[in-house]
Amino acid sequence: MRTRPLKVALLGCGVVGSEVARIMTTHADDLAARIGAPVELAGVAVRRPSKVREGIDPALVTTDATALVKRGDIDVVVEVIGGIEPARALITTAFEHGASVVSANKALLAQDGAALHAVAEEHGRDLYYEAAVAGAIPLIRPLRESLAGDKVNRVLGIVNGTTNFILDKMDSTGAGYQEALDEATALGYAEADPTADVEGFDAAAKAAILAGIAFHTRVRLDDVYREGMAEVTAADFASAKNMGCTIKLLAICERAADGGSVTARVHPAMIPLTHPLASVRGAYNAVFVESDASGQLMFYGPGAGGSPTASAVLGDLVAVCRNKLSGTTGPGESAYAALPVSPMGEVVTRYHISLDVADKPGVLAQVATVFAEHGVSIDTVRQQGKDGEASLVVVTHRASDASLSGTVEALRSLDTVRGVASIMRVEGE
Amino acid sequence: MRTRPLKVALLGCGVVGSEVARIMTTHADDLAARIGAPVELAGVAVRRPSKVREGIDPALVTTDATALVKRGDIDVVVEVIGGIEPARALITTAFEHGASVVSANKALLAQDGAALHAVAEEHGRDLYYEAAVAGAIPLIRPLRESLAGDKVNRVLGIVNGTTNFILDKMDSTGAGYQEALDEATALGYAEADPTADVEGFDAAAKAAILAGIAFHTRVRLDDVYREGMAEVTAADFASAKNMGCTIKLLAICERAADGGSVTARVHPAMIPLTHPLASVRGAYNAVFVESDASGQLMFYGPGAGGSPTASAVLGDLVAVCRNKLSGTTGPGESAYAALPVSPMGEVVTRYHISLDVADKPGVLAQVATVFAEHGVSIDTVRQQGKDGEASLVVVTHRASDASLSGTVEALRSLDTVRGVASIMRVEGE
Repeated sequence: MRTRPLKVALLGCGVVGSEVARIMTTHADDLAARIGAPVELAGVAVRRPSKVREGIDPALVTTDATALVKRGDIDVVVEVIGGIEPARALITTAFEHGASVVSANKALLAQDGAALHAVAEEHGRDLYYEAAVAGAIPLIRPLRESLAGDKVNRVLGIVNGTTNFILDKMDSTGAGYQEALDEATALGYAEADPTADVEGFDAAAKAAILAGIAFHTRVRLDDVYREGMAEVTAADFASAKNMGCTIKLLAICERAADGGSVTARVHPAMIPLTHPLASVRGAYNAVFVESDASGQLMFYGPGAGGSPTASAVLGDLVAVCRNKLSGTTGPGESAYAALPVSPMGEVVTRYHISLDVADKPGVLAQVATVFAEHGVSIDTVRQQGKDGEASLVVVTHRASDASLSGTVEALRSLDTVRGVASIMRVEGE
Repeated sequence: MRTRPLKVALLGCGVVGSEVARIMTTHADDLAARIGAPVELAGVAVRRPSKVREGIDPALVTTDATALVKRGDIDVVVEVIGGIEPARALITTAFEHGASVVSANKALLAQDGAALHAVAEEHGRDLYYEAAVAGAIPLIRPLRESLAGDKVNRVLGIVNGTTNFILDKMDSTGAGYQEALDEATALGYAEADPTADVEGFDAAAKAAILAGIAFHTRVRLDDVYREGMAEVTAADFASAKNMGCTIKLLAICERAADGGSVTARVHPAMIPLTHPLASVRGAYNAVFVESDASGQLMFYGPGAGGSPTASAVLGDLVAVCRNKLSGTTGPGESAYAALPVSPMGEVVTRYHISLDVADKPGVLAQVATVFAEHGVSIDTVRQQGKDGEASLVVVTHRASDASLSGTVEALRSLDTVRGVASIMRVEGE
């Protein structure tokens, strides 16, 4: 074993960073044995240097992250600051000054992954980010390496623990959205400002990363269709139950049937209770991957939290250190397929639509005609009426999102349709 | 991209080998893009050269596997023959003649993995074998790389599809063992001689491989305690249902609580219906991994079959080819921890014991005394009696296998105990 240690700079020392530092210390011998050389924490960049950080030598702490990554003796920079800047500038500077980078930064990777990979490649460095998607669950490495000889057609997953906690709570207790969100906040599963989670921004960033790797193409954050879950109601869960389904916020990345394009989207959807994703409880994450040869694979585990995320960071750290010792780099960006990302209108799936309609003869015929005119085939209709008002629940066969949108627009213009109570996609069948 | 192709020799062209060859041809462009150089099938060693193999140039086919691996221009040998010899000799010869090896051979790796890794390392070659455990499910790579910065404490899995199909059938239809086995045979899930599957030899080989990688130590096939599932009865399933459990053939690799030793075992066990492994149906495989930092992860997918196994082989092929191009090798054997493997007697778990006893006063007291004398604490007892005969179902708290064996031996010697109808471990709680 080499005795001169590899030097690691840690950018950020919050929930994840402090856990990375702790494990680097307590498991130093194991890490050294697995890497083939000791690793040494050479510096920790923080915003508040006065805060006491147990187990971290205060002499290592600095507020000058730029100076740390420019030192020139750093082998690996671990970036767990999050956000776009200064993380982007620091990672770029790290590459330029001899370091490879391990990052947990989904927002940055989703937005600027291609550019960062290019800088890494130009300087012969590694850029690893298993921790950016679904915490400890190995996903990036299996997609990039284990399935490198296969053709992935679909990635379907629960990649945000906060929203899964909320939806699970609504499902199991009948609670409304606000009540479930309040509980998630009280328990620390939701942040004070839950926007990034409940509006699907977090999941969309992960979808962009997963789609790019799975399909060997570039998918930017802007390419991902996104709908949050704040409008999911207790009534939607009741409808889902009637169909033998539950509701999950899903990230779905698909290759078009002709193989010539891909789509990526995040939205709430009904999935059958028999689907393995339906039984993913609480803040857990799970991702289904469908490929030509391997069939259906599922990866399941804690999608967030300091320790699980640190586990993913350290797995990458070991890999990057091994590469450094053998004078090589791991697989970089693989975007050779250069497939166009189709707009949401071209996505084909099934829909569950609840309509409030006048309770009089001929309404169903009118509604059915609108569906037929837009080429959307109806699977089942359920009608319930009382006191001159009725509700109509329509479940369609597979149709494009554009056809469905056209259908809904036309339905809204019917005198006999009082309102469209909800529209939800049905996935996983 | 390099234009000179990497040359691949395929040893074996059965269900898996023919699928590997097919995908190498049909996905040649994708493989080339992902590797950075084209790969070329340079030779196929088979036993019956006269058999027509669609899509394979007859000029590539040979019966002389040794000559093929000795050619000296082969970059990677893909070994999908199975069994100990001639696979072992061929792999060794391949290393000596410049080739790295991708293998799907669980029996060989479980028996001689350490020696083969040593030869690979001596010659600077790669030895990859993701396909040896659980088909397409990425397990070796996640354990070896993704979790390289974590401390794995437990691997608990369904790693044999044939036995899971049989047990699932018994559970869902109430069929007996023989009936379910016959159906598995008729459907092609079980081989004509099902011994390797139903007696747990196949799962034990996988357990040895997984335990070695998970705990960074050497676990040989002989170290794995093994019990088959041919004695599981419909009555056992009824007992399991009473406890809110089902029965699975599990491979269980554990680190002792003090961290100083490990155990590996394969046997049928009851697991709660709420455990994610309980809902693994048919011939699917799933493996739970518990680690210090990552918590509980699960990997799920098809555990066998030509295409899924080929997917795993090809993922390894891409990795080995990339290593070859960058003049390096991937992680080899990691057995630095050198932990002793404890015998089965030291395994601690819970037990479900069914006894046939005389239906008279004092029997329960007698039985309870025997458990107490052996230090096995009872959780619940259920007594059912009729016509002078009674059955007693005892579920214990956690106790060592040795204590339980002593208890059962003493119970058998009691006049009032007519027989021990079944003993089953209870896992996953």
